[in-house]
Amino acid sequence: MNNNYLFPVYKQINIEFEYGKGSSLYDKKSNKYIDFTSGIGVNSLGHAHPKVIKTINKQANKLIHLSNIYSIKVQKECAKKIVKLSTYEKMKCFFCNSGAEANEAAIKFIRKYAYLNEIKNHKIITINNSFHGRTLTTLKATAQEDKQKGFGPFTDEFIYAKDIEDIKNKIDENTVAVMLELVQGEGGINAFDKKQIQTLAKELKNKKILLAIDEVQTGVYRTGEFLASNYYEIKPDIITLAKGLAGGLPIGVMMSDIEDVFTLGNHGSTFGGNPLCTKVALEVLTILEKRYKTKKLQKTVEIFQKELDKFYLKNKEYFVCKTGIGLMLGLKLKDENNLSKVFEEALKHKLLVLKSGKDIIRFLPSLLILEKEIKEGFRKLQKSIIKLNNKDKK
Amino acid sequence: MNNNYLFPVYKQINIEFEYGKGSSLYDKKSNKYIDFTSGIGVNSLGHAHPKVIKTINKQANKLIHLSNIYSIKVQKECAKKIVKLSTYEKMKCFFCNSGAEANEAAIKFIRKYAYLNEIKNHKIITINNSFHGRTLTTLKATAQEDKQKGFGPFTDEFIYAKDIEDIKNKIDENTVAVMLELVQGEGGINAFDKKQIQTLAKELKNKKILLAIDEVQTGVYRTGEFLASNYYEIKPDIITLAKGLAGGLPIGVMMSDIEDVFTLGNHGSTFGGNPLCTKVALEVLTILEKRYKTKKLQKTVEIFQKELDKFYLKNKEYFVCKTGIGLMLGLKLKDENNLSKVFEEALKHKLLVLKSGKDIIRFLPSLLILEKEIKEGFRKLQKSIIKLNNKDKK
Ligand SMILES: Cc1ncc(COP(=O)(O)O)c(C=O)c1O
Ligand SMILES: Cc1ncc(COP(=O)(O)O)c(C=O)c1O
Repeated sequence: MNNNYLFPVYKQINIEFEYGKGSSLYDKKSNKYIDFTSGIGVNSLGHAHPKVIKTINKQANKLIHLSNIYSIKVQKECAKKIVKLSTYEKMKCFFCNSGAEANEAAIKFIRKYAYLNEIKNHKIITINNSFHGRTLTTLKATAQEDKQKGFGPFTDEFIYAKDIEDIKNKIDENTVAVMLELVQGEGGINAFDKKQIQTLAKELKNKKILLAIDEVQTGVYRTGEFLASNYYEIKPDIITLAKGLAGGLPIGVMMSDIEDVFTLGNHGSTFGGNPLCTKVALEVLTILEKRYKTKKLQKTVEIFQKELDKFYLKNKEYFVCKTGIGLMLGLKLKDENNLSKVFEEALKHKLLVLKSGKDIIRFLPSLLILEKEIKEGFRKLQKSIIKLNNKDKK
Repeated sequence: MNNNYLFPVYKQINIEFEYGKGSSLYDKKSNKYIDFTSGIGVNSLGHAHPKVIKTINKQANKLIHLSNIYSIKVQKECAKKIVKLSTYEKMKCFFCNSGAEANEAAIKFIRKYAYLNEIKNHKIITINNSFHGRTLTTLKATAQEDKQKGFGPFTDEFIYAKDIEDIKNKIDENTVAVMLELVQGEGGINAFDKKQIQTLAKELKNKKILLAIDEVQTGVYRTGEFLASNYYEIKPDIITLAKGLAGGLPIGVMMSDIEDVFTLGNHGSTFGGNPLCTKVALEVLTILEKRYKTKKLQKTVEIFQKELDKFYLKNKEYFVCKTGIGLMLGLKLKDENNLSKVFEEALKHKLLVLKSGKDIIRFLPSLLILEKEIKEGFRKLQKSIIKLNNKDKK
């Protein structure tokens, strides 16, 4: 069956996976693939996790969806858990259904803040190569102008800084917020420098400029900590989550500790915060919190990073460096023509990896990936680079 | 537990439902409520439908989520089913996670179309009291300026017509599209006149102006037909669906039969089109298609409408008229002060109804609601209007 009924917006690989188990995916002939992608960081507990399945079954039997005109108990419990894990004393959440919707909520929140604080013609600074979503406003927030072509009109609300250093050049009296990923996911697994981020956070606080951190990809233990913000030891004013939060179910969250900005009627979502997705999110968080506290998550991170190190050192002629933190990792290729090659060769060897930016092989494995799956994956990766161009070699 | 961890954006009723079955919802003391709301039209098959539960269980065991960088078989099957049911010969779909996201996709599509057709400073006409979503662009498309306050800047892309008649006054050479609900859901269960809509559709076709129909609330058999557009016998250029499509799971779809507008890289969504939600949607559509073909859906519509008629005729002193079509129905109150009263009294009698606009009691029952549930609901409604103000009576 071809794509006759779908808009051709995705560049798709023609493999149809039928089922998964842990970090393995199987096609209809039961060929096994090692999954170093977890659905671009979504299947945080891998595929078919028994507790996720059990929770889905149990909750679906009770109640899948309820309107937000009624108080939803598990939504409140899920919000409470998120806030506790964030280490903030007080914080409030808004539930929606995706990363883009979480960032829409964040931008609405920033706008309302600007309005209440009478900041005229407010500006929000974002960073080159960022990715914040595909709705019109998050697309404009995404500082990649090629993706915006043909989709205007846009307002002049967003100002793009080249990098963290450049932010201070862009700040003026109209600046209301800076919005960024701490590790740029789509833009090349670009982990910003911790000191630089901490200095920025301090300066923004002094200047009363909001800091909004898009943790759609970095959040929910992806970096080894619940939030990348925890890893960077900063306390942003606004945080957004999505991807890995509900083990695969669509969900998004925007949270902030600033009171009195979002009031009655200011925002809403039909599906956002439904019992099924928030119940599963609560279960995912409970499982991951336990793995974090028992240091099992740390162990998984170490094993993956050790294998990546070994691979990198063994094959240094092809790579500039390793990038990323936690289980959000990349290898930067010397020759960007090799990116598609590695990707395709890996597929042939039944290993799933991702691309990021122009020259990064990206790894976003399940946070529960097993040592033997990691080792099997890197063995496959080793076979996948045999035919690479090697500029350095003569 | 109070709402300490949630932004106070919803006006919420303090009842916590634990589980549901068909058109009944139960709180933790197992008090039974008759549900005439189905989560604002979301639980189209009612609560805990055995086939929905079974499909969720089966698919969750296999695969919940997969990235759109791989071809997803069930997503293609679901798109095919939607297109077949729509009665279009050819049409393509884009999957996302909500009504707002579906409309964002529609507006992106319209903008790209304007760009390709060199329509400068294009305008999109929407109608007063419409509701298209809560993301920034869909909020601007929503012609209710009170909801937009404090959330600018907006572009001047959207022009509001007072009603269908007024659209022609607003059309000029910059007009690229008209976007509307055929039955305004939030704006008072306002079903537009069929002839007027057909004339409009014809005029727009002649003028090469796109017609986008927001079927987020009216779609998926809510009106008795698969699409309200089928009921109105028009073929819009763009259609959006969400709410009832996946029996409660978050999903949205934007579809169009215009080729070559959305091309590679033009749009995307992480969760959109995931195996779990599209598999359940496929099951929901299969069930509803069968009920439609066997005239069982028609029967349910008739029974509900008959009971509503009886109720209306018996209590005419309180109501101006009945509104709506299919199972998207309303009763317009003579005295708008009675709206909250009916709503609250109904709650006391353990009946769930909705408000719409300022003076409409709204009914969006499950499409599978049973005759005995309908009768029980109207008996409760009868008890709920005892204390109403009656302007007419002296
Ligand atoms: C950092 C970041 N923000 C936002 C998004 C958008 O999320 P979604 O695709 O769920 O709308 C993504 C998706 O890749 C992302 O990586
Ligand atoms: C006609 C219509 N369009 C769009 C929306 C927005 O849908 P969602 O809340 O899923 O974003 C709604 C929600 O009530 C609606 O009724």
